[in-house]
Amino acid sequence: MDAMSEPLDDFVAVIPAGGIGSRLWPLSRAESPKFLHDLTGSGLTLLRTTWDRLLPLAGAANISIVTGRAHGDKVEDSLPDIDLDNVFIEQDPRDSAAAIGLAAAILHRRNPEVVIGSFAADHVIKRQRVFEFTVRQAVAAAREGYIATIGIQPSEPAIGFGYIKTGDELVIDDAPMAARVERFVEKPDLATARAYFADRSYLWNAGMFISRADVLLDELAQNEPELHAGLVEIAAAWDTPERDAVATRVWPTLKKIAIDYAVAEPAAEKGRLAVIPGQFDWDDVGDFASLWKLVGDGRRDGVTVLGPNDNVLEDDASALVVSQTDRVIAMIGVQNVIVVDTPDALLVTTSEHAQRVKQTVSALQTQGRNSVL
Amino acid sequence: MDAMSEPLDDFVAVIPAGGIGSRLWPLSRAESPKFLHDLTGSGLTLLRTTWDRLLPLAGAANISIVTGRAHGDKVEDSLPDIDLDNVFIEQDPRDSAAAIGLAAAILHRRNPEVVIGSFAADHVIKRQRVFEFTVRQAVAAAREGYIATIGIQPSEPAIGFGYIKTGDELVIDDAPMAARVERFVEKPDLATARAYFADRSYLWNAGMFISRADVLLDELAQNEPELHAGLVEIAAAWDTPERDAVATRVWPTLKKIAIDYAVAEPAAEKGRLAVIPGQFDWDDVGDFASLWKLVGDGRRDGVTVLGPNDNVLEDDASALVVSQTDRVIAMIGVQNVIVVDTPDALLVTTSEHAQRVKQTVSALQTQGRNSVL
Repeated sequence: MDAMSEPLDDFVAVIPAGGIGSRLWPLSRAESPKFLHDLTGSGLTLLRTTWDRLLPLAGAANISIVTGRAHGDKVEDSLPDIDLDNVFIEQDPRDSAAAIGLAAAILHRRNPEVVIGSFAADHVIKRQRVFEFTVRQAVAAAREGYIATIGIQPSEPAIGFGYIKTGDELVIDDAPMAARVERFVEKPDLATARAYFADRSYLWNAGMFISRADVLLDELAQNEPELHAGLVEIAAAWDTPERDAVATRVWPTLKKIAIDYAVAEPAAEKGRLAVIPGQFDWDDVGDFASLWKLVGDGRRDGVTVLGPNDNVLEDDASALVVSQTDRVIAMIGVQNVIVVDTPDALLVTTSEHAQRVKQTVSALQTQGRNSVL
Repeated sequence: MDAMSEPLDDFVAVIPAGGIGSRLWPLSRAESPKFLHDLTGSGLTLLRTTWDRLLPLAGAANISIVTGRAHGDKVEDSLPDIDLDNVFIEQDPRDSAAAIGLAAAILHRRNPEVVIGSFAADHVIKRQRVFEFTVRQAVAAAREGYIATIGIQPSEPAIGFGYIKTGDELVIDDAPMAARVERFVEKPDLATARAYFADRSYLWNAGMFISRADVLLDELAQNEPELHAGLVEIAAAWDTPERDAVATRVWPTLKKIAIDYAVAEPAAEKGRLAVIPGQFDWDDVGDFASLWKLVGDGRRDGVTVLGPNDNVLEDDASALVVSQTDRVIAMIGVQNVIVVDTPDALLVTTSEHAQRVKQTVSALQTQGRNSVL
């Protein structure tokens, strides 16, 4: 076997598995977040397909998960081969800088040379070989001291993602496609998105960051010194009998901030961020509109069913039906409708309104209807 | 009390309670047909409101029901004051001429002078005093030997109903509004319906027929002699120990035909049919579009909920939600949608497609999914 098919040395893939995915309510909810669902009809959870995707790059012993207390057991069910020392349980959700920083600090104590790559637990990626090729370049850039990110080559002028503006080429062995990140840009309006799409130097920010753990921690120390100090303190106790005592005391004091703001953007301003363009299909499946696009292969004629329900009937309808029940569901004459059918909650919406599901979840929270959230 | 508030002498109100109402599936179904539902939010079944409407006209001892074996118990639950001698159980459904003819034949044996009026179990009527005033006129016309019907003054150019063309005035004591029926016309197209609506002499055929039992039986004998003979044979045995034996033998041989074709239309051709215009609000609630109009008072903004479900949320939606569960139901951004939510079946359609529900029910029958029908 050549090097391209063997796990990378001194590399740990980190999977933050925290977000509920509330725009996918009532499918995703606190007790069964998005990453524990099969959203592609593959029969596997998104978390498990993420694991499988990273396995050739890191090997089973070098994939770690950062997740919440509520999901520890389900994560282990989904990933029977995981080393339990690599499951990092958060006391409570404190955003991505704390989650990834915790993994970096612990893994750095275990191996000072380690390169870590963080990959969301709930994204969908096709073209595995291209993905691997891209990550290997990112790891090569990381070994040179860069914080590397993977920017997805846009397939449409999307307004739902942030963008990465590619700058000058970087000359790095084993990373032929690497370039400097010129800057990050927030989600654009449609006109701007169209300009980005035509430009080709703007890539989607998929939130994948690959760097040496020490480089990431240094950057964090410069930008968020208190957060860094807290994480280092927890990490020092992690593999000792003091873990619980220290984590319980320190974790709840940590600042909630996204890794983008705590690490990536400041590093980009200093020219320390590299980007590898990812020429693979990627989707964060952020709402039911993107889920429909994904499972319907972009087609909107007829009714696309996701889930085990064999009892969906259609008559002159175009719809996505996501069903977790075995009820007979008849879709008659409705166009461009999304139905999500669970035992205790039902959502009926459209592609155009799929983003508004989040507000309904907020309204349910305000009303204290936590049993369905 | 004056005569207008006392039950009529020698009058029996007959309520054929047979139809499932399959265009209201999955709410209406074989085990819980339309007439056993509360479709107005009153807390009472349609059958019970029909009973209550007829009570001042006939009195509790003189209201009879013709229904199927499966519904006998539920009918009695819904109508605690009914005289069980007035519940006529059909062996199997054989359309309205057999159902109403059976009642006529039995009631005629019990009282040769009786006038019977048949009123569907599953219609909605508002303006009780006007209804009573109209029926009393119809009974007066019936006593003069006419088969009387009540034609509803149209409130819009409906294409979903048959029409009655009013002819010359009839001079009948106590029936000042009576006229001869010129002819019956089938459901029109929209242009024709508009012409009828402008004309004002066209009334909706609501299927209410009031006549002396002997007159109705004579007309049936002329047009459908075998059906008549069978009904007379069953009626002769009805109040004897032979009832079951004769009914079991004869009923299944009876022709299935609507009372409109077996009695009303032939009688109209002979000039024996009288019509009293009904100036009250009437709806047969034939499908979910008319149900929405009824319970939403004609308004389509916002979400109208029918049923006990308190957990329906809306965000920029216009919909009718009929729910028999307590699931949280979120309607987001959908316009003009009808959702019918039952424990084992879900329908999503629009007002414009509400008539097509019947085809879906047929498809389910073909597939043998009787558990939800």
